[in-house]
Amino acid sequence: MSKLWAKDYDLNTLIEEFTVGIDYILDQKLIPSDCVASLAHATMLQSIGILSEEELKSLKEGLKQILGEHAAGAFEIKRSDEDGHTAIENRLVELAGDAGKKIHTGRSRNDQVVTAIRVYSRSRVLGIIKETGDLVRAILDLAELHKATPMPGRTHMQIAMPSSVGLWAGSFAEELIDSIRLLSAAWEILDQNPLGAAAGYGVPLPLNRDMTTELMGFSRVQNNVIYVNNSRGKMELMILDILDQITLTLSKIAQDLILFSLPEFGYFSLPAQLCTGSSIMPQKKNPDGLELMRAKAGTVSACGTQIRNILRSLPSGYNRDFQETKEPFLKGCDITSISLKMMTLTFRELKVNIEGLKAGFSKDIYATDAALDLVASGMSFRDAYKEVGLHLDKLGDQDPDESIRSRTYRGTSGNLCLDEALSRLKSLMDIASDRESKIDASLESLMGQKLNLLVK
Amino acid sequence: MSKLWAKDYDLNTLIEEFTVGIDYILDQKLIPSDCVASLAHATMLQSIGILSEEELKSLKEGLKQILGEHAAGAFEIKRSDEDGHTAIENRLVELAGDAGKKIHTGRSRNDQVVTAIRVYSRSRVLGIIKETGDLVRAILDLAELHKATPMPGRTHMQIAMPSSVGLWAGSFAEELIDSIRLLSAAWEILDQNPLGAAAGYGVPLPLNRDMTTELMGFSRVQNNVIYVNNSRGKMELMILDILDQITLTLSKIAQDLILFSLPEFGYFSLPAQLCTGSSIMPQKKNPDGLELMRAKAGTVSACGTQIRNILRSLPSGYNRDFQETKEPFLKGCDITSISLKMMTLTFRELKVNIEGLKAGFSKDIYATDAALDLVASGMSFRDAYKEVGLHLDKLGDQDPDESIRSRTYRGTSGNLCLDEALSRLKSLMDIASDRESKIDASLESLMGQKLNLLVK
Amino acid sequence: MSKLWAKDYDLNTLIEEFTVGIDYILDQKLIPSDCVASLAHATMLQSIGILSEEELKSLKEGLKQILGEHAAGAFEIKRSDEDGHTAIENRLVELAGDAGKKIHTGRSRNDQVVTAIRVYSRSRVLGIIKETGDLVRAILDLAELHKATPMPGRTHMQIAMPSSVGLWAGSFAEELIDSIRLLSAAWEILDQNPLGAAAGYGVPLPLNRDMTTELMGFSRVQNNVIYVNNSRGKMELMILDILDQITLTLSKIAQDLILFSLPEFGYFSLPAQLCTGSSIMPQKKNPDGLELMRAKAGTVSACGTQIRNILRSLPSGYNRDFQETKEPFLKGCDITSISLKMMTLTFRELKVNIEGLKAGFSKDIYATDAALDLVASGMSFRDAYKEVGLHLDKLGDQDPDESIRSRTYRGTSGNLCLDEALSRLKSLMDIASDRESKIDASLESLMGQKLNLLVK
Amino acid sequence: MSKLWAKDYDLNTLIEEFTVGIDYILDQKLIPSDCVASLAHATMLQSIGILSEEELKSLKEGLKQILGEHAAGAFEIKRSDEDGHTAIENRLVELAGDAGKKIHTGRSRNDQVVTAIRVYSRSRVLGIIKETGDLVRAILDLAELHKATPMPGRTHMQIAMPSSVGLWAGSFAEELIDSIRLLSAAWEILDQNPLGAAAGYGVPLPLNRDMTTELMGFSRVQNNVIYVNNSRGKMELMILDILDQITLTLSKIAQDLILFSLPEFGYFSLPAQLCTGSSIMPQKKNPDGLELMRAKAGTVSACGTQIRNILRSLPSGYNRDFQETKEPFLKGCDITSISLKMMTLTFRELKVNIEGLKAGFSKDIYATDAALDLVASGMSFRDAYKEVGLHLDKLGDQDPDESIRSRTYRGTSGNLCLDEALSRLKSLMDIASDRESKIDASLESLMGQKLNLLVK
Repeated sequence: MSKLWAKDYDLNTLIEEFTVGIDYILDQKLIPSDCVASLAHATMLQSIGILSEEELKSLKEGLKQILGEHAAGAFEIKRSDEDGHTAIENRLVELAGDAGKKIHTGRSRNDQVVTAIRVYSRSRVLGIIKETGDLVRAILDLAELHKATPMPGRTHMQIAMPSSVGLWAGSFAEELIDSIRLLSAAWEILDQNPLGAAAGYGVPLPLNRDMTTELMGFSRVQNNVIYVNNSRGKMELMILDILDQITLTLSKIAQDLILFSLPEFGYFSLPAQLCTGSSIMPQKKNPDGLELMRAKAGTVSACGTQIRNILRSLPSGYNRDFQETKEPFLKGCDITSISLKMMTLTFRELKVNIEGLKAGFSKDIYATDAALDLVASGMSFRDAYKEVGLHLDKLGDQDPDESIRSRTYRGTSGNLCLDEALSRLKSLMDIASDRESKIDASLESLMGQKLNLLVK
Repeated sequence: MSKLWAKDYDLNTLIEEFTVGIDYILDQKLIPSDCVASLAHATMLQSIGILSEEELKSLKEGLKQILGEHAAGAFEIKRSDEDGHTAIENRLVELAGDAGKKIHTGRSRNDQVVTAIRVYSRSRVLGIIKETGDLVRAILDLAELHKATPMPGRTHMQIAMPSSVGLWAGSFAEELIDSIRLLSAAWEILDQNPLGAAAGYGVPLPLNRDMTTELMGFSRVQNNVIYVNNSRGKMELMILDILDQITLTLSKIAQDLILFSLPEFGYFSLPAQLCTGSSIMPQKKNPDGLELMRAKAGTVSACGTQIRNILRSLPSGYNRDFQETKEPFLKGCDITSISLKMMTLTFRELKVNIEGLKAGFSKDIYATDAALDLVASGMSFRDAYKEVGLHLDKLGDQDPDESIRSRTYRGTSGNLCLDEALSRLKSLMDIASDRESKIDASLESLMGQKLNLLVK
Repeated sequence: MSKLWAKDYDLNTLIEEFTVGIDYILDQKLIPSDCVASLAHATMLQSIGILSEEELKSLKEGLKQILGEHAAGAFEIKRSDEDGHTAIENRLVELAGDAGKKIHTGRSRNDQVVTAIRVYSRSRVLGIIKETGDLVRAILDLAELHKATPMPGRTHMQIAMPSSVGLWAGSFAEELIDSIRLLSAAWEILDQNPLGAAAGYGVPLPLNRDMTTELMGFSRVQNNVIYVNNSRGKMELMILDILDQITLTLSKIAQDLILFSLPEFGYFSLPAQLCTGSSIMPQKKNPDGLELMRAKAGTVSACGTQIRNILRSLPSGYNRDFQETKEPFLKGCDITSISLKMMTLTFRELKVNIEGLKAGFSKDIYATDAALDLVASGMSFRDAYKEVGLHLDKLGDQDPDESIRSRTYRGTSGNLCLDEALSRLKSLMDIASDRESKIDASLESLMGQKLNLLVK
Repeated sequence: MSKLWAKDYDLNTLIEEFTVGIDYILDQKLIPSDCVASLAHATMLQSIGILSEEELKSLKEGLKQILGEHAAGAFEIKRSDEDGHTAIENRLVELAGDAGKKIHTGRSRNDQVVTAIRVYSRSRVLGIIKETGDLVRAILDLAELHKATPMPGRTHMQIAMPSSVGLWAGSFAEELIDSIRLLSAAWEILDQNPLGAAAGYGVPLPLNRDMTTELMGFSRVQNNVIYVNNSRGKMELMILDILDQITLTLSKIAQDLILFSLPEFGYFSLPAQLCTGSSIMPQKKNPDGLELMRAKAGTVSACGTQIRNILRSLPSGYNRDFQETKEPFLKGCDITSISLKMMTLTFRELKVNIEGLKAGFSKDIYATDAALDLVASGMSFRDAYKEVGLHLDKLGDQDPDESIRSRTYRGTSGNLCLDEALSRLKSLMDIASDRESKIDASLESLMGQKLNLLVK
């Protein structure tokens, strides 16, 4: 099958390897999304008289055939196809003859790429929202179970004040809920139909963009056709930056767990199935999963940097540079997704060592409480602080359990307000489910069959 | 005045220089915000019986005095104070005696820092939203004025298809509106009251966080006290990433304008006041302002990278590393703000050279239209494409004006839908104004006087 | 085949997918290098009595067999092997029985990984040095050919002063030569044998590191065994940062060529074989290769960022996070290498349009010369500058050829000193060749056959 | 005083604030370096007949006067001067009249900037090399003192194998020596005289670049004048990337010390003068200095990112964007320098707790030794590994001192080879001193007085 733009000369072999890159591999993920966008475009072309009903029918059959081949792992994208979008068109010409040649009317390959990525990422982001939600639920379950379990609170990594496992875990739940909230807001910006931009300047045909918007289940059109092109990479970056926030949280949790599961602390035990061994040291049970979550957070962040770097040099309008934004986006999503699952598993399997946690309460931890006791008896805080600081040896032993109960206002160890976090999570998850249902219904109606856009 | 934690030994001079950094300069921006937070804390302390009415009154007078000194440029933060927060407390002890010593009851310096930055950034972000709105309005004005002015559309920087100045400008307006929308959503996450976290674990006092939330005009409490500490840097990063999106747009506009104002293109003329000269070449009128917008976009992005780098190594709880996140955040805001103003001025003063734009319409630009004409007469697009491609020399001259009118569906040169963009902008600006008014009212009620948190 | 550390429990499937990542694919590149390191280790083990001559012989046969299988594309690394290092050991046990089990004596998998990467990168970097040298030669050839071809010199992208194609091209040659020089210095740091570090703390066996150093052709031992581990990622980063310098140069050249081959400038023509078309616009010949060089420079830079991110969080000693540094290093090398080849091809095929270049000499370009003429007649430069600046319309037409000849001191258009650049290049290439020869000789002597470590 | 390029219109105020930035503050650091470059240029101008001996003399007096004012803190750069280079020229006109107006003959402001930065950074980098050397010496002293002090070796942060304080410290010494080596090689690339490039295209005057090279003590000319301009930012980036390597090492040391000085480990004690307190917790002695070293390493890295971002968008030739590269370069140098001093102080004052270190030797740490004992009695390593791994409870107690002596080959705890490290350090320091002396001699000869280019 020939390249879309092949004319009368041969392309240098080296440049082919250089320009095609690994699109022919990456694009397997985008095949179902492109089929959706192609059928929406064809349906619209028929409605404005460019395709006959017959032609539309054969295109629809062809696309369903391609979807089937793809689901069976049998849809091949050859390097000579350059990418999945051309592979689909070439296959359509095989399956639907002249109708296949007509489907490109009024759209460009950029159009195909930007729409397929948008359709894909719209669902991918909802999936990540739900996976983050699963993790938050696992964290909140641990927080609830151990809301009264004392844990030394640290600042500067050093023993600081009494805290609890519930407070520690709850903090990550609330942090992740805020990330979900931002991701949910970003999703609304993503949820715009780019189709119809052609090469960024439209075409002199009466395309109906409202119709394709409806058919693909988008909430609205991404209006300006130059903006559609300029938003390539930027939409991906917007999402990656929020995934970076999420994986930064995972990295922090990993740091805490690696540290606090060391024998020197003994607060938590990592389950053996989540650890790996050493090839030379027989005794080792290493927290490899957590270390890799920490490292992969750095990779997700670098995916965002990569897109930044690429966008930075560009004037407006389509530039081929955009091609290089696809890989980091897909990679950032994949890593975030599997990291979330790993961390959910970790929280589900984590063993909390109550004795180890209590043993961590050295006397120093009560110094601030002692100063505040002096304040209660009338001393100013500054003077009480000095008094205690100069007589640290006089600090008495106290009961960790009682100590964490004595923090009583909202957000502290004695008053976690976990129910509020759970309720905020539920609202966000309900919104995500509604969005997913609406998309599923639109795509089923368009295709005449249920679809899973996220198959590998 | 002594440092808050000074006890019985001298601090090494080098470490002082190293640890204090330039906080004593940066914190000038945060003085009014800390005064607000301090008065809210004191008012709450009085309500739970820790301060007397008398003490609260003298603290309020003291804080108003400090605000006055600051407004007059007379509030000094000495390097020996370490930072503005300690400087305020030290000055309060001078002004209000023992009451000044009591105001630190139930809060830590981290508490002060995180609250002052939150109060400041809450207003700063609203300010940037409005400045972005000003730019969008200037762009939309140009787009409206030149909605029918032809402009060569480019892909790969090369002549591609007919476009218009209206379409070109409108694309940036819509891109920025989406950034405003995201920033507006992020603002909601920012709008949480962190006060009461103390060192990240609360205190055994019955602090009333709902009351300080109300007093400072926050929409809700940032509940979990560990999360409050862990959110340092992360909130700032969330904002900086969106400022990065905005300055990436500014950079792209700058690239376009630098290019298109070259004599080789001649599409636009930059006003002389916005250019600077060369020290050696007498003829030069250089687009320095635009070049610096492009460069400073890279700086804003690096501010985000800096915070990422700092956060990446940290376990949970307060770590001194957070101090280093203040400078890049403030810098990123300042640069974005002045860049937005510069770009607004540029759009207001930009000269559009209609003749130059039309002269850019080489015959090639109509190739796709020619192919679509063949499609209209029944040929498949793939065949028409080949036909035109092999006979480019036969392309005829056409009228640019008519050509851009021939794109008629939404989002194209003949149908810009600028009113929709304007209406979306207006909604976002209304929300920002409402938020600002609510904050202003709360702070005026707390302080008993109008406040400007953003004075330099 | 079992994992090296498999004991008495099953590993969770998810964690396997998560922890193995794509090492089983990436490591194909490292197989020959690991065989080299394994044979050096075995030879040394025999010399200290841990292996018998018989065992060494069967290991050598086994490793040569593996090399053969790999060269034939028949050496499989199964995901269940985790990585190529274990795959080699497992295969050795099949091929050499008990001797295969003994080869891990006194080394850890980290040892294998760090040594294989070092052996590989030592040759890879020399290869990149030579590829950069090829490009420099192509650039110098063009510079020599067009040393007298006038080209408008630009600052701020605007016409500034008379320049030449030779000066323009020569600048990139000198820039790249400096990068080669730095890469050559970094190579010396890379050229240290890490083998013998075991898990970072050595082993209580009389290993002979000087011997393995000699066998593998390293110049010296990387002494401290903890440093060996801590240098993982850092060595890779050192190299990537210099590749970033190189690809930044390529990106700048690409920017220039994209711009200057536009019809609006017409200085250069890109050969048709190096361009690609558009799927919708029949007339387009897009500079995709150059655009992708620009974009991929951003990717190389992000590879460095990724390693930075990963290293940033780590305490000393081996951490599993290091695994994530392998992919960006290999990717950064691959992209740099193919980009260099693409750019060499571009310079070899570039068409210089002398008429277009001369047409670019607008009168303004001679303003500084005019001011210096006034200086020659006694006016101070500051006054001459003002005089010319206020009467730009009086600038006369001049001859571009003469103008570039009038710059006569070293480094200017009339005195390029290309021979010096060529001579510096030659010295650097000679050093690289000597280094390559020495390595080749050592490895051939060790293995008893010629080796190509860089086969894909 | 007027700006160099002021002609017949007023510059918009906003653009002035935007374009001048903080150059008028930053440039204080570059004043002595610009004076050097200016005098070299003037001396050369006199030699080719453009300045009279009289004029040269008065310029030399003027420049010495400026140096004196600067040393006394009395040389003011006004914002209206734009930068230090113009300030010098304006002051020269005041001091030397017409001669002052002539000094700009044959050079541009870019020329001044690039030369002043080069002259400055050439000395700055030598300074940092020496400061790094000071730290290495402090580390080696500790390593020597504690070469026989046992320390638990860790991988994955967990107890792994017997190690020593000497091995741990020595690893950082060797890592830093390699960084010094790279920095020393980069310095050679830096050591090229850029003066004479003018605006990047030279001038039609017989400038003598070899003479200014000699006068300023450079080893050679940076030949191609376009390359001179294109190297702005790139030279700075080359240096910053190596400073990033150095501060990454400091950050890793800081991570180790923060961790190992926790009571849970108790290996080291940080001296009280190097710690700071908490404003709310009277008991705290926080390792703020180390935390800030960790954070500031992230800042140095971000300085490199900032320059990358700025360079990424640029075509060749001078672009105003370069101005933004000055601040991150100076900042990166300053932070690295003070961080090195802080770490040197830390090593000089660090208390090693021998009992705490020995207490860290849990039985598991000897597992690999036990497996190797089985190997000694004839078992294959793979079988011995399994045997020990399944019977970890049978591991006996051993003597840490003996254990670290049992590693006997080079680079391990029993054979540190510290003398080799010291000797490599000495060679590098000798080279740095020689370079410094040569520069000092040249500058003293040029100026007729001793100079310190690095005064603040």
